[in-house]
Amino acid sequence: MSQTKAELAFHALDTLSIELPSWGFADTGTRFGKFYEPGAARTIEEKLQDGGHVHRLTGACPSVAVHVAWDFPQGVQSVPAVAAVAEGEGVRIGSVNPTLFEDQSYKFGSLANLDEAVRKKAIGHVRDSVDILNAVGGRDLVLWLADGSNYPGATDIRRRKHLLQDGLHEIHTWLTGQQRLLVEYKPFEPAFYHTDIADWGMALLLARSAGPRARVLVDTGHHFPGQNIEQIVTWLLDENMLGGFHFNDKKYADDDLTAGSIDPYQLFRILVEIHSWAFETGSFPDIAFMVDQSHNIKPKIEATIQTVTTIQELYVKSALVDFERLYECRRKHRVIDAESVLRSAFFSDVQPLVEDWRRRRGLPTDPLQAHRESGYAERVARERGCQGGGPSRYAGV
Amino acid sequence: MSQTKAELAFHALDTLSIELPSWGFADTGTRFGKFYEPGAARTIEEKLQDGGHVHRLTGACPSVAVHVAWDFPQGVQSVPAVAAVAEGEGVRIGSVNPTLFEDQSYKFGSLANLDEAVRKKAIGHVRDSVDILNAVGGRDLVLWLADGSNYPGATDIRRRKHLLQDGLHEIHTWLTGQQRLLVEYKPFEPAFYHTDIADWGMALLLARSAGPRARVLVDTGHHFPGQNIEQIVTWLLDENMLGGFHFNDKKYADDDLTAGSIDPYQLFRILVEIHSWAFETGSFPDIAFMVDQSHNIKPKIEATIQTVTTIQELYVKSALVDFERLYECRRKHRVIDAESVLRSAFFSDVQPLVEDWRRRRGLPTDPLQAHRESGYAERVARERGCQGGGPSRYAGV
Amino acid sequence: MSQTKAELAFHALDTLSIELPSWGFADTGTRFGKFYEPGAARTIEEKLQDGGHVHRLTGACPSVAVHVAWDFPQGVQSVPAVAAVAEGEGVRIGSVNPTLFEDQSYKFGSLANLDEAVRKKAIGHVRDSVDILNAVGGRDLVLWLADGSNYPGATDIRRRKHLLQDGLHEIHTWLTGQQRLLVEYKPFEPAFYHTDIADWGMALLLARSAGPRARVLVDTGHHFPGQNIEQIVTWLLDENMLGGFHFNDKKYADDDLTAGSIDPYQLFRILVEIHSWAFETGSFPDIAFMVDQSHNIKPKIEATIQTVTTIQELYVKSALVDFERLYECRRKHRVIDAESVLRSAFFSDVQPLVEDWRRRRGLPTDPLQAHRESGYAERVARERGCQGGGPSRYAGV
Amino acid sequence: MSQTKAELAFHALDTLSIELPSWGFADTGTRFGKFYEPGAARTIEEKLQDGGHVHRLTGACPSVAVHVAWDFPQGVQSVPAVAAVAEGEGVRIGSVNPTLFEDQSYKFGSLANLDEAVRKKAIGHVRDSVDILNAVGGRDLVLWLADGSNYPGATDIRRRKHLLQDGLHEIHTWLTGQQRLLVEYKPFEPAFYHTDIADWGMALLLARSAGPRARVLVDTGHHFPGQNIEQIVTWLLDENMLGGFHFNDKKYADDDLTAGSIDPYQLFRILVEIHSWAFETGSFPDIAFMVDQSHNIKPKIEATIQTVTTIQELYVKSALVDFERLYECRRKHRVIDAESVLRSAFFSDVQPLVEDWRRRRGLPTDPLQAHRESGYAERVARERGCQGGGPSRYAGV
Repeated sequence: MSQTKAELAFHALDTLSIELPSWGFADTGTRFGKFYEPGAARTIEEKLQDGGHVHRLTGACPSVAVHVAWDFPQGVQSVPAVAAVAEGEGVRIGSVNPTLFEDQSYKFGSLANLDEAVRKKAIGHVRDSVDILNAVGGRDLVLWLADGSNYPGATDIRRRKHLLQDGLHEIHTWLTGQQRLLVEYKPFEPAFYHTDIADWGMALLLARSAGPRARVLVDTGHHFPGQNIEQIVTWLLDENMLGGFHFNDKKYADDDLTAGSIDPYQLFRILVEIHSWAFETGSFPDIAFMVDQSHNIKPKIEATIQTVTTIQELYVKSALVDFERLYECRRKHRVIDAESVLRSAFFSDVQPLVEDWRRRRGLPTDPLQAHRESGYAERVARERGCQGGGPSRYAGV
Repeated sequence: MSQTKAELAFHALDTLSIELPSWGFADTGTRFGKFYEPGAARTIEEKLQDGGHVHRLTGACPSVAVHVAWDFPQGVQSVPAVAAVAEGEGVRIGSVNPTLFEDQSYKFGSLANLDEAVRKKAIGHVRDSVDILNAVGGRDLVLWLADGSNYPGATDIRRRKHLLQDGLHEIHTWLTGQQRLLVEYKPFEPAFYHTDIADWGMALLLARSAGPRARVLVDTGHHFPGQNIEQIVTWLLDENMLGGFHFNDKKYADDDLTAGSIDPYQLFRILVEIHSWAFETGSFPDIAFMVDQSHNIKPKIEATIQTVTTIQELYVKSALVDFERLYECRRKHRVIDAESVLRSAFFSDVQPLVEDWRRRRGLPTDPLQAHRESGYAERVARERGCQGGGPSRYAGV
Repeated sequence: MSQTKAELAFHALDTLSIELPSWGFADTGTRFGKFYEPGAARTIEEKLQDGGHVHRLTGACPSVAVHVAWDFPQGVQSVPAVAAVAEGEGVRIGSVNPTLFEDQSYKFGSLANLDEAVRKKAIGHVRDSVDILNAVGGRDLVLWLADGSNYPGATDIRRRKHLLQDGLHEIHTWLTGQQRLLVEYKPFEPAFYHTDIADWGMALLLARSAGPRARVLVDTGHHFPGQNIEQIVTWLLDENMLGGFHFNDKKYADDDLTAGSIDPYQLFRILVEIHSWAFETGSFPDIAFMVDQSHNIKPKIEATIQTVTTIQELYVKSALVDFERLYECRRKHRVIDAESVLRSAFFSDVQPLVEDWRRRRGLPTDPLQAHRESGYAERVARERGCQGGGPSRYAGV
Repeated sequence: MSQTKAELAFHALDTLSIELPSWGFADTGTRFGKFYEPGAARTIEEKLQDGGHVHRLTGACPSVAVHVAWDFPQGVQSVPAVAAVAEGEGVRIGSVNPTLFEDQSYKFGSLANLDEAVRKKAIGHVRDSVDILNAVGGRDLVLWLADGSNYPGATDIRRRKHLLQDGLHEIHTWLTGQQRLLVEYKPFEPAFYHTDIADWGMALLLARSAGPRARVLVDTGHHFPGQNIEQIVTWLLDENMLGGFHFNDKKYADDDLTAGSIDPYQLFRILVEIHSWAFETGSFPDIAFMVDQSHNIKPKIEATIQTVTTIQELYVKSALVDFERLYECRRKHRVIDAESVLRSAFFSDVQPLVEDWRRRRGLPTDPLQAHRESGYAERVARERGCQGGGPSRYAGV
């Protein structure tokens, strides 16, 4: 290796931008209820404050993803005010996520609904979202659809594929410049029998038929147990169809847990595929690193900081893999030695390197500690109060 | 076989009582939102009206399970009024389910919470639930706990086991006469890393340590993909620890779909284990057949009727299995012939038998059709209106 | 519906050809051993005898799939003798399966092996297989690869993708006329960490890059629990990329159990997608219906007959779906009614129709019974004997 | 913490004995074939040589588990010769595993077979195994049964439970002194529909009914994806029913991969439960740490050494957990801090501590390197040759 470990680590950290989700600062939960946190952000302004706070502590989160229905209730008219808050916080609006799943009209789907009127409404919402994307000067339109069905026979899966092809193609025509359409997939939930964009293969076909600006978005939680995510990532990279990630972790289904909290080795291996691509090609793939998590138990800002520092550490570890040696072991089918190359990077202590980088970049060496000492959480709890009064009800009033 | 098919079918139908869940008539949903149905029941009174309506149409649902926090907001004081409504509708209150999961204090668990104050609150709620059970003259106290944790290391699993043992033992001391404590298990959701009562083995150990009135409740949706539920049922029967069922179906996780809608053959096989036990012992096991479903897409009353008729048909099919022949094939290791015995019962057309039974019992031969023609749905939609106004929000206000 | 049920059923049965696997007549097993059946076929001649026997009893199995290493140990030179046996048995050689997994040289893969010498050997074996395909006048070359790796880091997944693309492209150039290359996928086993062609998306991309004669083969056992196979089938149909099926069933992994034995409703739904495509387009898709099962417990010929009759019955049921009504219910989002359309076809008693068809086609009405009465099994047991002497050893000598 | 890290680590390493499986040195494989390694052990003598070699290099593997049918083809008469070889190699015979699955008579089960003659044969084999256990002065009889069925209806699951209860009870009566009966469970494979001892709950009930010397054995590969193994371990510890482990790893099913190779964090968490029990009670549980792996791709001795060093490192990491702090964080529901306690131990660099321990114990600091430099592999390859000639055949001759 011609570069020192420190050089590799610093380069990795300097070039790693992690986009935070605005909804990660709000109260979310399971179908069995939300646990309300004092100070949880209620508005996009508060979410951007929290995002700005995390960015100031970590230096790694220059942008915040938004969900249109939650963050822009007045649509594009909200943009100037929102943009001003963002600027004040030192962050920018990142990817724009149309919200195509909560509205009562989406009971049987949005863009794939067999009912034309609903599809038009959904398309209209995406059109508004593109307006917002333009207004904020953003790049990525992220499309996650909850479309699907709950019972065998209930709908016409093939026809819905055509409707999606048409819808995505139309949406694609609205994009300009560097803008991209990122198509997300998910095998299950909230639709239980079939989901219209169920896996990476479906997302890829839809993205290809939509047009050249469309790419696939990999949410690490949207796979079956045992499925090899790093292989999917590598295939998408090779097909030039990987648009970016939604990072999180899970033990069972789409649990939206902290990235790397359940299986850190898996997340490391995914990141290794990125670095191995860079090692081979000499340049980094142009992909968006985004977080998609819901914090119902952990304090949201603390959990966000933990997420960022975890991804940073695993990213540095993956950058430190001795790829020369790894490729040589592979060529010789030396399985144990190839494993050792991976594991020695995975288990190497990168904490000192990361702390040194933070120090040199003028950042607190322990962002979580700095947050706790900042009084921020106490202040917003006082200012914002707690959203929920009584319990949320699954089946009561 | 000494009995005719009709005799077997009629006996099966006469002795099959299916308890409906009050919450199956209310608006429920996923974490991504509820779809509100006009006329969906809002109060226990309305739920009992709906339950009574289904019972009048099917003759098979004499009781309605209740969830304490949703249905008895005033606790035991609500009982007289509720009981009067039930009586007027021709049904009775069935199992009583303490609600130990929505309240903000249950963020880190209820009966297994490491914090004594929360445990006391939870125990108090169960004490109130037993009061309700007594007041309604009910039999089964059903305990489903959402207790668990989301992250490795977060809590002390062994200590929580002890706390549960203590709590269930105390609860058990309150039961009298024919009352039973049914302990439910579930591997995941809403806790994602560990659930305190995760499988039938844990439920069985807890029930045994609680006392002789405790049994295990099998929710058909609370298993891993590929797990053999009928085997668990048979083991519990053999250990005299099967208390009853929560019927539903699923494709992936705990989807709470209509019983038999995804894998009817599996539900049939579960029911076959009941009938084979009866065939061997000459008497039916004393178990409660309950439904636990959430209808977010289907009209709730229609879905409930569909559930009841589906269970009835599969129950009749399972009663028609030629057990003499089945056991003989098994003894001789004639696998294909044993399979054929099962499948010929599964695929036999029991519709005429069931319709004939309904006719003789003075019931509509097609309960779903009768419901649709009754004008009930239209009437309650007018009277009750629709609960939800705007969209429900996952992460917005 | 303009056609009668009988017409629909007869048309379905007349046009359904089920290809049997030669290896389904041989002793196979699990890694923990084979159970040897007296009379199990040892050679391709004996396999063809068994296949011919099943075809004479069912009238539905005019072809037998072959595995090159097991059935053509002398390569193309074996063809004339084999073809003569087939002709004598009234069947023909169907799909040709190169055997790219048992040979010691394939320890680290065959067509995707990083070692060029091994790839050349594998390509050479496929070349021989195409020669056999030509010599027998066959149509489908079926490629199932066991290629993959067992440990993270062990190999270069992206490079192996390129090698597969090259290999399949070369193979494709050898095909002529109506010949097709069918690319099979499988998520796991015998490689445990990654499998080079892991899912339908990878198979589709490889098939597309190979050339216009390449299609995807769906083995019903090669999916994750909960994965929606009928959706994949419909997408492949819509993309004009569905080449055919390997039918079998499973409870957990790739168990190679009798088709429809574990989840008959799922197999029915897959077949419904075929018939709904035909309903929409007015013509049947050109796909191969093949069986891929391993019978380690059941008598192999009996299990094969059971498979054929099960598929026939489910196929007839799926042909009897009232598609007019199904599509209307879907358009109106009448979920319960759409379900009922499916279920009434699934549970309809098609036995009389199938028996009538057999009678009119001069076939025994109960092929399994006819086989048992034929004395065939006893005769081949006498003639062929039993292959295994002592126990097979997993880890002993 | 009163003890230094080095003290904790040394104590952990001094008290950790890892039992190696004799079959881990032999050629094994999947149903699709074995890849033969030159020098792979063929006889128990060779397996003990390999085991002794690994013990000399690691100082951690004083015993070797045996499988009766593979290692004692002459039964108890083989013991003196085998014991002599073991003594010469500096190891002893560890757990004794009856082999109840390969013999042709076990087609429909062994101890749970409905046929009394087969059960008697199986019981006889276990009786012979106990004789061997006595003769070698061993402690643990490990019972893994492949018993189960492949098809719904095929057998009488409840009756088989009774047969197993009877069988295990009888076996238990033969044990004396410190001997134990360890009951293993597994959800699937090689039986695909039902396995008679499918999960820890079944194993526990069988062990309890067998008698006080019976315990449950946890094979880390014998669980469903997403199942929380550490919770099961903790429950078994708490019930005083944990007998020991079979360590390995898996991505999907029972893949028998190197321990910690796929999910090292999970294995660490399992070991943490052991140490937290010790922290609470002041003494270590009396459990057997055994390995159960099959090496079909990796060189077997190298893979065994890698396994031992991996377990050692993870065991030391788990010993270094700051349990005082962990328990305090849990009491205060400080989830993130509790996680950090675990993760800081998991990611701590214990390599220097382990190397120091090896140096002080007179062991090579890098056992894998020492093995490679020893010439052992080359020597045994020369002496033993390679077992397999041509390819192994799944369905051919």
